[in-house]
Amino acid sequence: MEPRDPDFRARVHAIFHRAHFIQELGVQLVDLKPGLCSAEMLILPRHQQQHGYVHAGAVATLADHAAGGSAATLVAPSETVLTAEFKINFLRPASGTRLRADARVLKPGRTLTVAEAEVFAYKGASETLVAKAMVTLAVVPSRG
Amino acid sequence: MEPRDPDFRARVHAIFHRAHFIQELGVQLVDLKPGLCSAEMLILPRHQQQHGYVHAGAVATLADHAAGGSAATLVAPSETVLTAEFKINFLRPASGTRLRADARVLKPGRTLTVAEAEVFAYKGASETLVAKAMVTLAVVPSRG
Amino acid sequence: MEPRDPDFRARVHAIFHRAHFIQELGVQLVDLKPGLCSAEMLILPRHQQQHGYVHAGAVATLADHAAGGSAATLVAPSETVLTAEFKINFLRPASGTRLRADARVLKPGRTLTVAEAEVFAYKGASETLVAKAMVTLAVVPSRG
Amino acid sequence: MEPRDPDFRARVHAIFHRAHFIQELGVQLVDLKPGLCSAEMLILPRHQQQHGYVHAGAVATLADHAAGGSAATLVAPSETVLTAEFKINFLRPASGTRLRADARVLKPGRTLTVAEAEVFAYKGASETLVAKAMVTLAVVPSRG
Repeated sequence: MEPRDPDFRARVHAIFHRAHFIQELGVQLVDLKPGLCSAEMLILPRHQQQHGYVHAGAVATLADHAAGGSAATLVAPSETVLTAEFKINFLRPASGTRLRADARVLKPGRTLTVAEAEVFAYKGASETLVAKAMVTLAVVPSRG
Repeated sequence: MEPRDPDFRARVHAIFHRAHFIQELGVQLVDLKPGLCSAEMLILPRHQQQHGYVHAGAVATLADHAAGGSAATLVAPSETVLTAEFKINFLRPASGTRLRADARVLKPGRTLTVAEAEVFAYKGASETLVAKAMVTLAVVPSRG
Repeated sequence: MEPRDPDFRARVHAIFHRAHFIQELGVQLVDLKPGLCSAEMLILPRHQQQHGYVHAGAVATLADHAAGGSAATLVAPSETVLTAEFKINFLRPASGTRLRADARVLKPGRTLTVAEAEVFAYKGASETLVAKAMVTLAVVPSRG
Repeated sequence: MEPRDPDFRARVHAIFHRAHFIQELGVQLVDLKPGLCSAEMLILPRHQQQHGYVHAGAVATLADHAAGGSAATLVAPSETVLTAEFKINFLRPASGTRLRADARVLKPGRTLTVAEAEVFAYKGASETLVAKAMVTLAVVPSRG
């Protein structure tokens, strides 16, 4: 997949840095290629739900944002992406020290881009697939 | 729909109070009936994504947690619920002063409960439907 | 919701009549208002899966097509709709004599319309909600 | 992934042969391994929607059934699977001579199995990814 914006890296970094909620969660952009985006967060007590696992909403936030990052690598300089909808399956309870989402674009488009994201939990040397999301993003003019 | 746990109110309150991520977001349980749960949060700068709207992940967290609350009103005292998957459509950008999720159980079950949640944004006197989610929850034994 | 095409009824009838797969299934348009569409099909042996219930794919087809009909009531004469994605929960096994899908638009849009559809099964005097779908449709120029 | 039923092949073949709707569509099981199932159908005029593409419902049926086949390779002899819900994105209009769904289990479980299916369309030598589905299946006792 070919990026249409030579400055796509700066653009996606901004999507992470300017999103307060992403900063609140402690999410960091860790890898970026055209059509691909990976993001990580340390698992902290403040991310937990009532049983001590990472809240489904925190897992979903990480997956959605990484998917948005992957989609944003492929739009024109005058465009941005907004999540239109997503679906996420929670395959195993998420716990450990760190979460990572690997997102990739399944289909870039002029008005809609579809991406998927796999979320892994890390504890010591073990890596576990804990969730998978499919995300539909609207490609819209950026506001300047 | 008939609650199977006479103490269902205390149970659902605990689901909100003990979930750190829900406390972090400032989500409060505001209404509870068998099969129904409503929750609200003030919209704060820390909930924003890069364009100044509430992040899709924060909206999804509110919807998912309210759906879990509605499902938890109908399980037995020895059981709890865990989100197996959800899908959420973002119908309009979420902004304003407050978000509210109204969740209701579509189908209670012994192993799976399905709920839906509508999320409204409030600004002054205006109420806007900003998202709708469908949530599948696994009914599992509680851990003690 | 206001129709933008005064001939929206003829348009939606055509969406049912010209769709071979819908004719194959025996689906009929039974009610139509701006933003609303209901369709029915008799349950026949050819719709069954391996346990004798209506196949999830047949239920999904009915829900998706009714959702498309509801969305098509609201587009301009030069436009049509295509399903971008849908999600459907199967709440109970579908059996009986007849299925009905009641679809309604949640949010009409210039490029995306979101609709939902509830599917009911009928046996004698009983009506049972067997499935619920949420459908995202792309609004695209019609091909002439 | 290890099959728990040594006769899993016969079981999955039966899921295809005994499902009338699958026979009606002309769907055939073409490949089967533990956790994997591929199915194909010739594209025929009776599968079309109003624009001449394969109907979203037919594409969804193929994806759902292949996902069910992949899940059924991993359950015990006394169990079967039923689709609890699925989500499918239509990435490109489906046309050509043949459709193929490649399904694989993402997470087998005692009560829930999650699978995904990619649907490809073939025309001459070209292969196009036209849809991707995520499917949640309930693992239930078979009725004998």
